[in-house]
Amino acid sequence: MPDEFAVIAPPRARILAAARDLFHRHGLRGVGVDAIAEAAGTNKMTLYRHFESKDELIVAYLRGVVSEADDIWRKIERENPDDAQGQLRSWLKRAEECITVDGRGCDLANAAVELTEAGHPARRLIEKMKTEQRDRLANLCRRAGIPKSEVLADTLTLLLEGARVSRQSAGCNGPSSKFIATAETVIETFKAKAKPKVSGKALLRKRAS
Amino acid sequence: MPDEFAVIAPPRARILAAARDLFHRHGLRGVGVDAIAEAAGTNKMTLYRHFESKDELIVAYLRGVVSEADDIWRKIERENPDDAQGQLRSWLKRAEECITVDGRGCDLANAAVELTEAGHPARRLIEKMKTEQRDRLANLCRRAGIPKSEVLADTLTLLLEGARVSRQSAGCNGPSSKFIATAETVIETFKAKAKPKVSGKALLRKRAS
Repeated sequence: MPDEFAVIAPPRARILAAARDLFHRHGLRGVGVDAIAEAAGTNKMTLYRHFESKDELIVAYLRGVVSEADDIWRKIERENPDDAQGQLRSWLKRAEECITVDGRGCDLANAAVELTEAGHPARRLIEKMKTEQRDRLANLCRRAGIPKSEVLADTLTLLLEGARVSRQSAGCNGPSSKFIATAETVIETFKAKAKPKVSGKALLRKRAS
Repeated sequence: MPDEFAVIAPPRARILAAARDLFHRHGLRGVGVDAIAEAAGTNKMTLYRHFESKDELIVAYLRGVVSEADDIWRKIERENPDDAQGQLRSWLKRAEECITVDGRGCDLANAAVELTEAGHPARRLIEKMKTEQRDRLANLCRRAGIPKSEVLADTLTLLLEGARVSRQSAGCNGPSSKFIATAETVIETFKAKAKPKVSGKALLRKRAS
């Protein structure tokens, strides 16, 4: 954490920033509240004044992750105004960046892997967030005029989720390195289905008339 | 663990069986060696006589997971002798079962998410195993006569990895429920590319001659 931040930011913000960094790098169970408090330049008592439990801190951290994802969506829309096809290309590019730049994968998916208790308060939140992301992508595919936008969104979601987890298990030269090529091929295949086809038979009829 | 197993099996096998069950359900960091020793009907000292450390137990557990995957591959080949297309259909069916029956996803992928230390002894093992699984699938696609079998294997791998992790984060009604439909469509698309196409132009030439 930069020194200025440690001095200027209020404790809650510092704790959240430290949790964001440490949970991302070491996992939820790989980091204790002591380490987070220390990295935030504060102590456990202060941490517990702001967050009742580690679980509450985890939920706040995940809300922060979603807020970052929302920022990316807004940036994609702002940079490609009224251009759904451009937005989809931009989404792809950013998805690719997520995979290659950061080997730790998706914080929400990783959290779901670690939080095995069915009733954990973060699980409902993660499911809600993942569903919203997928629906947002389906909406973009629909606006881009691609047929079967719902199926395309599911496919692209599976490819991206797969690439982010495969990057961690099979390394950066594994199947995750094929994400962009695969996703582009899938999009083109869906688009091709939309084009009115002139079949051989139709051509023959046309020639005969 | 069934009572007979607890009585008959030697300690090492009981410890491995308990680790297999507990690590799978609660994650590697969600379970301590005490809990494993207790579930195996033994104690920590005996556990450490068979496995030098928790990390060594984790590696042995992951080797067991791979051995199970090998058994499935052998079963697929035995049930569809000299029929690569049948083997691929069988692979798909079993992949689908993995996703729907077991909400905890892939043990190897989950382990990679939890073992964040770059030098952890299990990480190289996981990468090797994941690469072998992917290569085995590519070999099957090639034997099934599907063009671009390498690309197809990467795509199917990403879809399956994505479905298994998405099942955990987005629930059983999320994109993971579309795995089989998506994978079948992808396979059909690859197969279609293999068929010699009779284009409109070719038909016209044929008619003209």
